Amino acid sequence: MSKNETVAEHQHGYIHAKDDYLKRLRRIEGQARGLQRMVEEEQYCIDILTQVSAMTKALQSVALGLADEHIAHCVVGAAREGGSEAEIKLKEASDAIARLVRS
Amino acid sequence: MSKNETVAEHQHGYIHAKDDYLKRLRRIEGQARGLQRMVEEEQYCIDILTQVSAMTKALQSVALGLADEHIAHCVVGAAREGGSEAEIKLKEASDAIARLVRS
Amino acid sequence: MSKNETVAEHQHGYIHAKDDYLKRLRRIEGQARGLQRMVEEEQYCIDILTQVSAMTKALQSVALGLADEHIAHCVVGAAREGGSEAEIKLKEASDAIARLVRS
Amino acid sequence: MSKNETVAEHQHGYIHAKDDYLKRLRRIEGQARGLQRMVEEEQYCIDILTQVSAMTKALQSVALGLADEHIAHCVVGAAREGGSEAEIKLKEASDAIARLVRS
Repeated sequence: MSKNETVAEHQHGYIHAKDDYLKRLRRIEGQARGLQRMVEEEQYCIDILTQVSAMTKALQSVALGLADEHIAHCVVGAAREGGSEAEIKLKEASDAIARLVRS
Repeated sequence: MSKNETVAEHQHGYIHAKDDYLKRLRRIEGQARGLQRMVEEEQYCIDILTQVSAMTKALQSVALGLADEHIAHCVVGAAREGGSEAEIKLKEASDAIARLVRS
Repeated sequence: MSKNETVAEHQHGYIHAKDDYLKRLRRIEGQARGLQRMVEEEQYCIDILTQVSAMTKALQSVALGLADEHIAHCVVGAAREGGSEAEIKLKEASDAIARLVRS
Repeated sequence: MSKNETVAEHQHGYIHAKDDYLKRLRRIEGQARGLQRMVEEEQYCIDILTQVSAMTKALQSVALGLADEHIAHCVVGAAREGGSEAEIKLKEASDAIARLVRS
């Protein structure tokens, strides 16, 4: 394995589940198209809102999965090496979690 | 104006801004495609999470707009007429808001 | 019934359930004290976070209840009378819902 | 330093800021009492909802602080030692973050 591959695997915990994430994001893209069709066909607001909630939950679930793998791989990896890189990674993860909680 | 048109306008407060909602939903669909590209290109998790948060906020904003117009048109309209329809509409709106707050 | 009582009932939908809201808020106050005790006793972070989530859910539930009753009583009441007051009430409710969704 | 002290410091990242957390939780308790007073005095729903949003944000902020310190100290500490304890800690943190995002 080349150094680059090691680094890539180290940095991106989600890569081992890349196909799964792509599949979920394609489904979310489909939900966005479904919402356009609902608005186009002038469907009932409440039904549209129900679909928006389902899509938001699907997105949140992708975000939680990515955050978990980021902490398990990247943050922990940087922490093992220590130094300023560890602190930067912790700060980044903390900010990303705060954005998720507040969005 | 035909009876159907009146009913449609009454039921779907978002219709007067239909093109605006379609535009926002197309942009959200584009964000979903952008996320797939980021995962495909194995970009940094934190950058992907930042995009997910932006997309979640855009979706929430669509949902809040739809909920507002639903209350202003449909709930208030039903309430003016009174009876069990008014109660059903209030319960539906209440459930939709709860789903938004909890998602 | 005096005019003031009518107005009060009209404006504050939650009043018929005032005791219930007070009871729930006292329980939430108790949860805030429980959290202080947990931190004081240096309990495990994850257990504290679980309690914070429970308390946040309890608060959200109070907020959703108040918002429902506000829409059912105050917003609908103002809408029946029409005019600029109706628009102000709708805007206020819309802003309050947005704050709930985003907090 | 005794073994117990080491363990305590290791497990509870928030301890170095214990007084700060206690202060914030006392303020949150005060907000819960303030809300009871507002309901008691039959204040305007929207003003009560504004206070509930402020209190929810304060609680979220405490939770995000605790989660950060937990990841920086406990999760990273367990990960350095490796083994099943590391996996348990990552799973616990992941579940706690999911509860925060969804509440």
